[in-house]
Amino acid sequence: MPFKDFAQYKDRRSALIESDRTLRPDHSTAVSAAEAKADKMVRELRALEATTIWAAEHAGVPHPFPGMEFLTGRDIIMKTKLFDLLVKMPKGGLLHAHLDATVNAEFLLKLALQQPALHIRATESVSVLNMSKILPEFKALPQEMFNESDTALTDSSYSSNTWVSLQKARESFDPDLGGPQGFDKWVIGAMTINPSEGKSYRSKDRTYQTHNTVNKIWEKFTSTFMVSTGLIRFEPVWRQYIHEFFRSSVEDGVSYVEVRINFYPKYMFGQDGKEDIPHREWLQIFDDTLNQFKAELKRSGRDDEFVGARIIYTTLRFIEAEELEWFCEDCIDLKQQFPHLIAGFDLVGPENTLKPLIYYAEGLLHFRERQKELGLDIPFIFHAGETLGDGTEADVNLYDAILLGTLRIGHGFSLVKHPKLMEICREKQILIEVCPISNEILRLTSSMLMHPLPILINNGLPVALCSDDPAMFGNMGLTFDFYQVLVASEITGLIALRELARDSLKHSTLEPPEKSLAITKWEKRWEKFIDAIINS
Amino acid sequence: MPFKDFAQYKDRRSALIESDRTLRPDHSTAVSAAEAKADKMVRELRALEATTIWAAEHAGVPHPFPGMEFLTGRDIIMKTKLFDLLVKMPKGGLLHAHLDATVNAEFLLKLALQQPALHIRATESVSVLNMSKILPEFKALPQEMFNESDTALTDSSYSSNTWVSLQKARESFDPDLGGPQGFDKWVIGAMTINPSEGKSYRSKDRTYQTHNTVNKIWEKFTSTFMVSTGLIRFEPVWRQYIHEFFRSSVEDGVSYVEVRINFYPKYMFGQDGKEDIPHREWLQIFDDTLNQFKAELKRSGRDDEFVGARIIYTTLRFIEAEELEWFCEDCIDLKQQFPHLIAGFDLVGPENTLKPLIYYAEGLLHFRERQKELGLDIPFIFHAGETLGDGTEADVNLYDAILLGTLRIGHGFSLVKHPKLMEICREKQILIEVCPISNEILRLTSSMLMHPLPILINNGLPVALCSDDPAMFGNMGLTFDFYQVLVASEITGLIALRELARDSLKHSTLEPPEKSLAITKWEKRWEKFIDAIINS
Repeated sequence: MPFKDFAQYKDRRSALIESDRTLRPDHSTAVSAAEAKADKMVRELRALEATTIWAAEHAGVPHPFPGMEFLTGRDIIMKTKLFDLLVKMPKGGLLHAHLDATVNAEFLLKLALQQPALHIRATESVSVLNMSKILPEFKALPQEMFNESDTALTDSSYSSNTWVSLQKARESFDPDLGGPQGFDKWVIGAMTINPSEGKSYRSKDRTYQTHNTVNKIWEKFTSTFMVSTGLIRFEPVWRQYIHEFFRSSVEDGVSYVEVRINFYPKYMFGQDGKEDIPHREWLQIFDDTLNQFKAELKRSGRDDEFVGARIIYTTLRFIEAEELEWFCEDCIDLKQQFPHLIAGFDLVGPENTLKPLIYYAEGLLHFRERQKELGLDIPFIFHAGETLGDGTEADVNLYDAILLGTLRIGHGFSLVKHPKLMEICREKQILIEVCPISNEILRLTSSMLMHPLPILINNGLPVALCSDDPAMFGNMGLTFDFYQVLVASEITGLIALRELARDSLKHSTLEPPEKSLAITKWEKRWEKFIDAIINS
Repeated sequence: MPFKDFAQYKDRRSALIESDRTLRPDHSTAVSAAEAKADKMVRELRALEATTIWAAEHAGVPHPFPGMEFLTGRDIIMKTKLFDLLVKMPKGGLLHAHLDATVNAEFLLKLALQQPALHIRATESVSVLNMSKILPEFKALPQEMFNESDTALTDSSYSSNTWVSLQKARESFDPDLGGPQGFDKWVIGAMTINPSEGKSYRSKDRTYQTHNTVNKIWEKFTSTFMVSTGLIRFEPVWRQYIHEFFRSSVEDGVSYVEVRINFYPKYMFGQDGKEDIPHREWLQIFDDTLNQFKAELKRSGRDDEFVGARIIYTTLRFIEAEELEWFCEDCIDLKQQFPHLIAGFDLVGPENTLKPLIYYAEGLLHFRERQKELGLDIPFIFHAGETLGDGTEADVNLYDAILLGTLRIGHGFSLVKHPKLMEICREKQILIEVCPISNEILRLTSSMLMHPLPILINNGLPVALCSDDPAMFGNMGLTFDFYQVLVASEITGLIALRELARDSLKHSTLEPPEKSLAITKWEKRWEKFIDAIINS
């Protein structure tokens, strides 16, 4: 390639870089003078803290770097000014989170301890020898089954699988095992991936060493849901849980949520300990709590901070094909009763080991025909490609998700290997719900630096950042995920983050008038956010 | 997307998968019945061993899986029948390897011990306390500087930085530190990344724990070159080293090499211990050794197994821009004297920390003009993008490499983030010299499953697999790199490997007649390889 002179080389170079970045959302987009200034300040802060914080010594963390593995880096992240800045960023919508994993385990336990109906049991007496392996099981019992004289779980005379009142089990926990605090640690450790034993590198590291393959970490991950479900799927707790989910989302700058709820269990437990609360009542509770929360915000003059919540109906991908129809009809039912709540339909569970979309494809197509007959529209919003596989069933799920007309793709981690699908997603504006921290903790990538997100962004695909399962991972809200993305790049700055937030609202299932309003409110908050940065 | 019926869905699905894979080299390519059968057998063997070998227990390896981190997985790989099969595969050309890192450290030490001129020293007496940190330094000395009464390096009376005869140092190595075998282990450990202390998971793991960032592993990596250079850059050793490089390449099915030689040191040491052997004599030695090796092969009727070797002239990317010209002129000089040997020009060294291509761009453009004036063609074959950076200097090197007209790209690890550059590489057929195991050991990726290679292949870019620095990494030849690529995918099979091998010859700098001949010979050997698989 001949150049007239070096000046021409430099011109062609700039043009090449420009054309290579032309599909990025922060390219050819309006940027105000204030935004440009704020972006510059943010970049300078990022560069500064890469040295002052990340290049410093951190006890128990031998190899710190920006974008490092989250469980180990979390405490360092929270020491940064950049994190504090991002907490205040209006994040837009949270489009990919599993309700049962959205509220802090400590808070959940607190809620649960207020409920006399909640009981706990274990397969054997809990001791120092088995504490790290034994998982508690929870259940709401009818009053007639309450046990007056509960034996402590830690007592050698504890009889296998005997239900004990949660409160009493906590109070009577062996002082040698930490007493009530030890009980808390044990229970919370069973509901999270970040062990609550302590924050030393060693205990954080345990996950990276003992659960260091995708399938093994999924086993631990699945077990956390199995444990917490007994506390969450209990009406008096559930409604407060949802409230806390809304509250903590708003605290982190999230103004809208589309949350995945697992409808595989057909009933929830009620106050009376009976497992007889059907799905339509779940939605009624959700609706009531949503309205109550909105009213609270309005009372404190904060109703511009939250525009609403919708539900993505999910069931588990181990059901037989014949069982699918029940859930589709149930979803239709709920959509007809709560049209403003049901946003979409999805199948969840480890793609690598459970059933692929093709297994359900015929039934899913039938589902769409049923919707058409009834004049309904419940878009598919499928998990697909959350895998390292190349040509495996989980990887191939991407083809079916797209053929089945998915509105968005959950994770789409392996999408970058598929040139045709990348093109389709860009052209059809199929947004990818990218969950950076989740992908790292679930061993698809080892750090944010290795995450394929820049490939999606640079190829012009719409993307939203999502937390997925913050209760298990520790990435409550969206600030942590935005932080990781920002510090792992020299190209991405405040404008790219702005577009990620905007796209999360643009690609939500809100109807046009609500969507416009949501975006307008977000834009106003964004301007204030920018001003606050400049004036700080 | 409405479907007439499920049959139509399945048709559209097949078509979508087809169109997504259409740019792959193993798509729309002639496949004989024999090849199809062999491919099927290989896929079955891969699937079988994923269970029988990789899902089995391995002492000291808690999480084995196909494509796992190489240092830990190497021993398991060598237990597989698939590995044995791949050893016999005709690999085509090795296009990316650094000469100083191509021969087994044990063999190098053996060669060195035959040379009385070679001496060793250390900054302090070697003991059990410092053995894992102290690095030996080697040098050829003139006879008059030989020391009659060498003190053992392990002796407390050893005086810092005193040169000791290599042979005597080995013989006198403290028996408590392993005697001569302990000496070997210490020296080899300083020249390799796979510690020679033993093959327990713990010691292999050490690299993954103690050098667990890209910059830290580069420090260890660079130190191995600093240590071995004193043994290699010594004429009597150098010519035997080159011969062993050719021999071991042919043993592994490689029929052609384009090896990078570091010409930063202006002289080599001669038998007489004087550092006065200039570059043109290096090339004469290379040429003589090449011809001698070819003659040996011919004598044993194996001359179809090796078509030749060429050199990519490299210098180090820490030189000042003003120093570049000397190396360019030197390269021109060597090209004029050995036109059949000099294949290209490159700059090497850690891209993340040393100088980027833009720093040298003006001088490099001038170099091309000089070549034109003289009627020469020495293509650039640049390392670029061997980094996790996003918008960093190393990542940006890709723009300059392409603008400067690079024939191929060494590594191009971050290329996948660049849509425009991907398109250019595909259209201009700029081959990417992918070094899978190197990338993993140098911490750009954590396993073959996470490597971006499928993105390159699926986007139709020409790729060759390369070992890079097998002496340090333990991936001698090309079989290990081919193995990792094969087992990390369900899509890639024998035909994809065939095309990778073919492309390594197609994209070499061989002149058309030689290139045709090389490919024809390789095709004949490929057919035999296929027949052997079918008949086994």
